[in-house]
Amino acid sequence: MMARKNVVDEFGFLRLDARKKTPLFRQLYQQLRTAILQGRIKTDYRIPSSRDLMEQLGVSRTTIVTAIDLLIAEGYLQTFHGRGTFVGSEIPDEQILPEGVAPDEIQRCSDESNHLNEYGKSLQGLNRETWYTGTPKAFCPGEPALDEFPVDIWSKIVRRVWKSLAPIDLSYGEPAGYSPLRSQVAEYLAVHRGVNCDPEQVMIVNGTQQAVDVVARLTLEQGDQVLFENPGYINARDTFQKQGAEIIPVPVDHQGAVFEKVIQKHPKARLAYVTPSHQFPMGVILPVERRLELINWAKENESLILEDDYDSEYRYSQKPLPCMQGLDRASRIIYVGSFSKVVFPALGLGYAIVPPQMVSAFENALRLSSRPASQVDQIVLSEFIREGHFIRHLRRMRKTHALRRQVFVEQIQKHLADELEIIGGAAGLHCTTTFKSQNKNDVAIVKQLAEQGIITRPLSGYYMSGTKKDRRLNGLVSGFACSTPSQTRRRIRELAVILKR
Amino acid sequence: MMARKNVVDEFGFLRLDARKKTPLFRQLYQQLRTAILQGRIKTDYRIPSSRDLMEQLGVSRTTIVTAIDLLIAEGYLQTFHGRGTFVGSEIPDEQILPEGVAPDEIQRCSDESNHLNEYGKSLQGLNRETWYTGTPKAFCPGEPALDEFPVDIWSKIVRRVWKSLAPIDLSYGEPAGYSPLRSQVAEYLAVHRGVNCDPEQVMIVNGTQQAVDVVARLTLEQGDQVLFENPGYINARDTFQKQGAEIIPVPVDHQGAVFEKVIQKHPKARLAYVTPSHQFPMGVILPVERRLELINWAKENESLILEDDYDSEYRYSQKPLPCMQGLDRASRIIYVGSFSKVVFPALGLGYAIVPPQMVSAFENALRLSSRPASQVDQIVLSEFIREGHFIRHLRRMRKTHALRRQVFVEQIQKHLADELEIIGGAAGLHCTTTFKSQNKNDVAIVKQLAEQGIITRPLSGYYMSGTKKDRRLNGLVSGFACSTPSQTRRRIRELAVILKR
Repeated sequence: MMARKNVVDEFGFLRLDARKKTPLFRQLYQQLRTAILQGRIKTDYRIPSSRDLMEQLGVSRTTIVTAIDLLIAEGYLQTFHGRGTFVGSEIPDEQILPEGVAPDEIQRCSDESNHLNEYGKSLQGLNRETWYTGTPKAFCPGEPALDEFPVDIWSKIVRRVWKSLAPIDLSYGEPAGYSPLRSQVAEYLAVHRGVNCDPEQVMIVNGTQQAVDVVARLTLEQGDQVLFENPGYINARDTFQKQGAEIIPVPVDHQGAVFEKVIQKHPKARLAYVTPSHQFPMGVILPVERRLELINWAKENESLILEDDYDSEYRYSQKPLPCMQGLDRASRIIYVGSFSKVVFPALGLGYAIVPPQMVSAFENALRLSSRPASQVDQIVLSEFIREGHFIRHLRRMRKTHALRRQVFVEQIQKHLADELEIIGGAAGLHCTTTFKSQNKNDVAIVKQLAEQGIITRPLSGYYMSGTKKDRRLNGLVSGFACSTPSQTRRRIRELAVILKR
Repeated sequence: MMARKNVVDEFGFLRLDARKKTPLFRQLYQQLRTAILQGRIKTDYRIPSSRDLMEQLGVSRTTIVTAIDLLIAEGYLQTFHGRGTFVGSEIPDEQILPEGVAPDEIQRCSDESNHLNEYGKSLQGLNRETWYTGTPKAFCPGEPALDEFPVDIWSKIVRRVWKSLAPIDLSYGEPAGYSPLRSQVAEYLAVHRGVNCDPEQVMIVNGTQQAVDVVARLTLEQGDQVLFENPGYINARDTFQKQGAEIIPVPVDHQGAVFEKVIQKHPKARLAYVTPSHQFPMGVILPVERRLELINWAKENESLILEDDYDSEYRYSQKPLPCMQGLDRASRIIYVGSFSKVVFPALGLGYAIVPPQMVSAFENALRLSSRPASQVDQIVLSEFIREGHFIRHLRRMRKTHALRRQVFVEQIQKHLADELEIIGGAAGLHCTTTFKSQNKNDVAIVKQLAEQGIITRPLSGYYMSGTKKDRRLNGLVSGFACSTPSQTRRRIRELAVILKR
């Protein structure tokens, strides 16, 4: 008895805490492993029985067994049949403990010497609260109906792809993406969006944000002017601005961006960023005349247009207009889009269609700035498209989203007709509303709503700082796609109560 | 009969070509779809029977049925039981054909107006042949033994993860990565590499290349000096150089980079890039004195060190040295590593451990420059680590690679002892050899070998252009990890024949 008692005593350093986020078995695993590596319990020590450890630590047998099994699997412990479990005689030689330096011994750099350049400093100062970060929760903008994603079909393809993978598929992929997927994207965009391109112009990227960033890096010089919709998509604007561009705001009316006066005043702007299919965040559609006007300007002034077609697949009331890229006869347009809204955001796959003269530089920029997006995901997506699931899913999503928008709009009209006005077309994943009384402070209201678990974005937050107050609309940008009709009904009733207070 | 004949005639535009890469069913599908969209065959037209189409087109029934089924699934065709298959009465409204513009009508931009800035132009001119692009083929450097990857275990986890995914897991992830994975990386690196960090310093990136690029963007000003090993890793050097840094070459001897004279001459360099665990491409290990010397310089001069620990997990003959980051008391080191060599390259996941004062800027840079790597892949990897598979696989791979290196070295010594000298330690995934007669031209030899299907890299290609000829070694950089012992034996015999010609 003495001997056993003794052994347990030697393990008295173990401290498990059920309130911690780390599961108990993992805490036990970590503490035992550290003790072995530090030599606190030495080679050939016998580990107490699981019964003894259960008693001493007051945890379940499963917890003990899981931790011990993990340590056996990793070679820290060894079992000898009938004799018990011991600390391994041959601790894996790769183990290296930090040399006893506690993090607080590290001498932090002072702010003065933080090693960042101008770009780095501007990013450090960036306020994260204004960022768009999605959670699939009513009424977060930009989130599709993930509850309707055909996980079964997708994971069946994943399974099949994994079964048929050759070692080469696990290797480094091509920087511009999986070649069959590039062809499929070219074909899909030709038929569905009127894009005119060869597969070699298709660059598979980690979301449209990477495409915007690469375009900025490849084309802009310090101080170059970029025409940008105001209000507009914050992440893209930040990308240009932080890289030293001068942002020239382009006002947005009920038909989208009004370029006319701006291009007269700034004909030599290097780039224009535009969301013609569904202006972000206003949700309006740019008419053909304005599109042609912008294209002509770009052609005459040797400027570029970045067309962000972020949720153009979703149109509920009319035949969609083809994209601008298909109207371009002078290779002035870079077209970007994403699978985040049609497949799912966590996939992180998007595409840029770049004019022929930029193909080589764009491909090399991808090569130097990241590894290509997961090759396996690209293969799975390619199969998903090839078998027709993609188009079927898109069509089903269009119905789902149309219904969700309809319910959203009805409920707003029913409960908040006096407070909110709906603007923009029947399209996309979000609906923008303005306050009928512009004395309201949308930032404060969004904060109040968030406290009640209702996520919206303040419309005024999408304007450039410095936009005059009388040109800045107050309102809510709400995603209708990620909540079911019943959730929407309930949430809008709650929203109405808060807004009418 | 007349009527049926007539119908077939209307489909006389179909032209299938078995020599094309596109499968026959897909050619048929595309041509029928285009005809429907163009209105060449109209709503309610009855499609000829598959027998008729077989006869007319001379292809198998499967080809016909697959194409027709796909068109039915996508809504272009409809089947009425007993009556046949017809063009759908409601063609999906999203269909938009390009407006008849053939690609050759596009007016290409002239080279003079290609819209690229200096960075863009330098990338356009980059010669792709000098790039490192891996194929898992003897003796491609940097490729692990993918044939030994436990695809079964990995895909079982993939399956399980897909079964238990909540909609939120399909949504946008955090820019710095999946939080449990960040903690696991911190823990793994602490134990195995002696890295000293909190999980919040861990940035999950799309491969180390993204980390190198973000560091360059956040810290370098135009003209800043970067100390860089010569010979060294081309992609990292290009990243710094193309972003306007002045590269200061640091010579490499049998113990790695010789910083002493260089830091005396260029004390104000902003950054030093170093591969201390296994110098790339020479394969030698930087001794502790040189590491401390470099760290002291960085501390005194407020400079930074980028430690690239790209294949440090693989050491076959001795206990590995901890990384440099663990020796740093002044937050001067950014540490980067990758899962490409231990898990598989197509995963595209790596990590950067950034000093605390850079955390915010780095996270925001990731937010603005790409979508995070696939959230699902990160969850799967996290499970792979949590269940101990990762460490088990690493240990198994270490044995596999050690054996493969041993065979490689033995064969070189057996067949090429008079021609090649092996340099560097028993580590990593590649083995560097120099020609005993330095009159040989390694670039020409590598080309000859490639014609015989043997992939190697010329050692001289890793030096900066401008390095004097007498300081530039000729040799072969060969990956031993991606070929089995029998392949290696065969390939080295072939290699010997070519080299001795």
